[in-house]
Amino acid sequence: MGMNMMALEYADDIIIIDAGFMFPREEMPGIGMLIPDVDYLRQKRANVKGIVITHGHQDHIGALPYILSDFNVPVYATKFTKELITNALKRGGVKNKTNLRRVNPGTRITIGNFSIDFFRVCHSIPDAMGLIIRTPIGIIVHSGDFKMDQNPVIGKPADLGSLARLGAKGTLLLLSDSTYAELPEHTPSEQVVGDTLERIIVEAPGRIIITTFSSLVSRIQQVINIAANHNHRVFITSRSIESTVKAALKTGYLNIPDGILCHLDEFKKLPHKQIIVLTSGTQGEPTSALVRIANREHKQIKIIPDDTVVISATPIPGNERLVSSTIDRLFRQGANVIYSKLAQVHVHGHGGQEELKLLLNLVQPKFFIPVHGEYRHLKLHAKLAHSLNMPKSNIFVIEDGDILELGPEEGKVIDKIHMAEICINGSKTEKIDVSMLRERKSLSRDGIVMVTLIVDATENRLLEKPVIVNRGLISSEENRSLMEEIQNIVTAAVNSSKKTVSGDKRALQSRRRNLEGKVKDSLGRFLYKKTHRRPVIVPVIIEMKKPLSRKPLSDKSKGV
Amino acid sequence: MGMNMMALEYADDIIIIDAGFMFPREEMPGIGMLIPDVDYLRQKRANVKGIVITHGHQDHIGALPYILSDFNVPVYATKFTKELITNALKRGGVKNKTNLRRVNPGTRITIGNFSIDFFRVCHSIPDAMGLIIRTPIGIIVHSGDFKMDQNPVIGKPADLGSLARLGAKGTLLLLSDSTYAELPEHTPSEQVVGDTLERIIVEAPGRIIITTFSSLVSRIQQVINIAANHNHRVFITSRSIESTVKAALKTGYLNIPDGILCHLDEFKKLPHKQIIVLTSGTQGEPTSALVRIANREHKQIKIIPDDTVVISATPIPGNERLVSSTIDRLFRQGANVIYSKLAQVHVHGHGGQEELKLLLNLVQPKFFIPVHGEYRHLKLHAKLAHSLNMPKSNIFVIEDGDILELGPEEGKVIDKIHMAEICINGSKTEKIDVSMLRERKSLSRDGIVMVTLIVDATENRLLEKPVIVNRGLISSEENRSLMEEIQNIVTAAVNSSKKTVSGDKRALQSRRRNLEGKVKDSLGRFLYKKTHRRPVIVPVIIEMKKPLSRKPLSDKSKGV
Repeated sequence: MGMNMMALEYADDIIIIDAGFMFPREEMPGIGMLIPDVDYLRQKRANVKGIVITHGHQDHIGALPYILSDFNVPVYATKFTKELITNALKRGGVKNKTNLRRVNPGTRITIGNFSIDFFRVCHSIPDAMGLIIRTPIGIIVHSGDFKMDQNPVIGKPADLGSLARLGAKGTLLLLSDSTYAELPEHTPSEQVVGDTLERIIVEAPGRIIITTFSSLVSRIQQVINIAANHNHRVFITSRSIESTVKAALKTGYLNIPDGILCHLDEFKKLPHKQIIVLTSGTQGEPTSALVRIANREHKQIKIIPDDTVVISATPIPGNERLVSSTIDRLFRQGANVIYSKLAQVHVHGHGGQEELKLLLNLVQPKFFIPVHGEYRHLKLHAKLAHSLNMPKSNIFVIEDGDILELGPEEGKVIDKIHMAEICINGSKTEKIDVSMLRERKSLSRDGIVMVTLIVDATENRLLEKPVIVNRGLISSEENRSLMEEIQNIVTAAVNSSKKTVSGDKRALQSRRRNLEGKVKDSLGRFLYKKTHRRPVIVPVIIEMKKPLSRKPLSDKSKGV
Repeated sequence: MGMNMMALEYADDIIIIDAGFMFPREEMPGIGMLIPDVDYLRQKRANVKGIVITHGHQDHIGALPYILSDFNVPVYATKFTKELITNALKRGGVKNKTNLRRVNPGTRITIGNFSIDFFRVCHSIPDAMGLIIRTPIGIIVHSGDFKMDQNPVIGKPADLGSLARLGAKGTLLLLSDSTYAELPEHTPSEQVVGDTLERIIVEAPGRIIITTFSSLVSRIQQVINIAANHNHRVFITSRSIESTVKAALKTGYLNIPDGILCHLDEFKKLPHKQIIVLTSGTQGEPTSALVRIANREHKQIKIIPDDTVVISATPIPGNERLVSSTIDRLFRQGANVIYSKLAQVHVHGHGGQEELKLLLNLVQPKFFIPVHGEYRHLKLHAKLAHSLNMPKSNIFVIEDGDILELGPEEGKVIDKIHMAEICINGSKTEKIDVSMLRERKSLSRDGIVMVTLIVDATENRLLEKPVIVNRGLISSEENRSLMEEIQNIVTAAVNSSKKTVSGDKRALQSRRRNLEGKVKDSLGRFLYKKTHRRPVIVPVIIEMKKPLSRKPLSDKSKGV
């Protein structure tokens, strides 16, 4: 469930819940986005009856543009989520014959053997839903991503009442969000951030630049409200924020009084104390507005003394350094930077342990599957459930590819299907080739040396000086001196290699392999001695019939 | 000061304070360690009179093996630090004619115009010192790395009394540790961790595996104490921990009752409830014992049910993902993992804002320079000082290379020397070549394609089919199909390229450049269309006099 996609199957009916993408790990250089491998579902295409989306975050909808071609089935989502999916499909270049169906919390939809009610939860995006799924063997509750905010900025608190009633009736299975199962405390209300931001904005000596997640509409709403209360204007410099704002306005999830949003020309005339800039770049993304501001590369906004920058977010694991160095560069520009370590300018969108236990106690499921989050989060969530006296045998910690068979009385994992890692490259998807990644990794560590050898076809006699080309190992200065040595090493290797007189093909091939091996070994040893590195060494052997004269070459190894 | 090395200069005397190394940043593939560029000091070699070390962490002593060849001067350090330096020099293969001098807190040493007292501070390593440096123009206080622990596990609390007395007399300049200037609270005492560890160890159902920083001797002491109190045995599987333990025992900073440390054979016979394993791997280092345990690759230790793993440390920024995935893998193995997010199994070695303010108030310096930490930490520390009514003009936020001229009445940055980035490669040091790093980075992103062209010497006629070799771009399967297309593209490019009849050298060179350009352009376009990648393209052009026949080649591009 790493990528937030799962399937429920009963008889001939399969429904898919969410279809998100995932960011690649460090060991995946050159890889864009990862999406789930739907090979297994493809084989059961006829049974797939619908896709149900809990909310509009990319890790829940991001894979839709790529899997819909396989499953031309209705996609069910609430108003705002539907809007974001439409935009995602447009960006993904998907022609609009997609069957997108809007649902409302409370209204029941039926897909084959499943009938589904959406219920409100609170999360860091409007219109987030949990699911109550009625099946022939019992009721399944899926929490979606959630926290329990008793006074959310947008929408109403989670509809715990209906869950409590379900709990009383008896629920077969609960699937619940584990993302913050590590945190003992109850995640604070979004309102808390509003209070902090208001204090900061009122006390700031000059302009305010605020960055937050573009889908965090309630954060944007709070900034708008503060601006309205204190006669500030808001200037947005971020395409992603502009597009969510548009979607939120269209669907009624954002309310902006007239005259609060200002345009560039107006922005330039305003007194600094009145200016709030809303921008993207919470994760230090190199192309984001905030990073361009930090690098003094932003057209409209250059940091000036008395600017205050508020990073109203926390780094996604793995982005810590990017974010820190952005903060450092903003400080260097002379800005005062306020971020989550210094003040409560952000709260999580997921519930902590207290909220997770509350949900378990309300729903009182017979079986429990922790979902969303890394393995440790699932494990810790399972321990929480066990600490509420749920028997271990009723708790299933399962991972991508696991197939759980669940009956009214018991469940067990009956199969694990292998899931390839699929990535998005440009507009197409491709299976990730692990050996290819390893190859790239070693290229980046120690570079590559290519040795072109022109040898006599019948015996290993060099007809030309070896041509050496390197990338990422030897710089042009060291070059000249080293290259000659390398040529000598290679020449010696060639002369020491196996000869054949017989022209028989197998003999020639084994000879070539032997020659390649010799070159790689001795050159590898030599280069390690000289550079302490183990570059990729690629011999290219070209076999010729007779000797030939050749123009002197400019040093190839300087290359291009 | 990123790497914790600074120099004080008065008249003809220069002293160096600390000489550490730093871990490379993400954008430095294949780079080991970074050390300070001492070029400027090399030019003033005659004036450099001594090196003073505050404590034995690698970011304070790690560069010594590499700079001592430039400065054959006495190195002053306290007992334990001296021991660690000796080991570091041995590992660095430095012959032992180094002039290492042991100093004791309280005893004054004189180096030219400087006379220096070491004073005790608390830090995450024994024997950590601050410096009181008397100069002709006034007293300078250097905090070293410090926290204020009122009941440290090893040694005594920081010697604040002598600082207070200094403060009363009047101090010219304070240099103080900024590493945790972000944290509002007072860093808890090391004792707090002991209490947590004791609870965990007593309640654990089976074996305990604890990982911590190898130099964190007080943590190791606490584990030993708990083991002694509860009849446990401690088995160490980590060369780095073994070596600090040895150094700490030798210098009397660690006290291990007989029979507590156990050996492998004994370890295997012990009841699980009695076993504590001490291991390295706090940062998820791939070769560390903990990671080998997590990967089931450790010879002596395989995770079994009821094992508890305690990560008594926090990730160094940038290592978060490595640490998380190690935790995930340990959970998968069936261990119960306890780490800093779940319980207070670690405290920082640096003071928070309350301690920083306390030091400033005690010393009452006229001038202040925040040291150690990233730019934002220096900035925040400077703000703290200002909040204590120190005038901004007396606070200097300076960075590596800045030269500050300080008089009794005022100071200013008079110069910034360019500092190259020096890295350690094997046993030698080398300047980091930025273009080389960029080259490696692009290799790892999109791979490389090499095109070997054998052309007629007088005009651009191909005498052979182009030989295409790629790494990190096209896998062998896709290969066959694509290679032919690539050969055609390249052939077309060659044919479309500039011809020359005149054999004049310049004409030939410009022709070669033109040919290289053509090949790179059209092949680049083609490959982007096919793969959405922009690999490095390297044409190798070999010019021949006359055509020649050639044996068929096995597909070179499959390569080695």
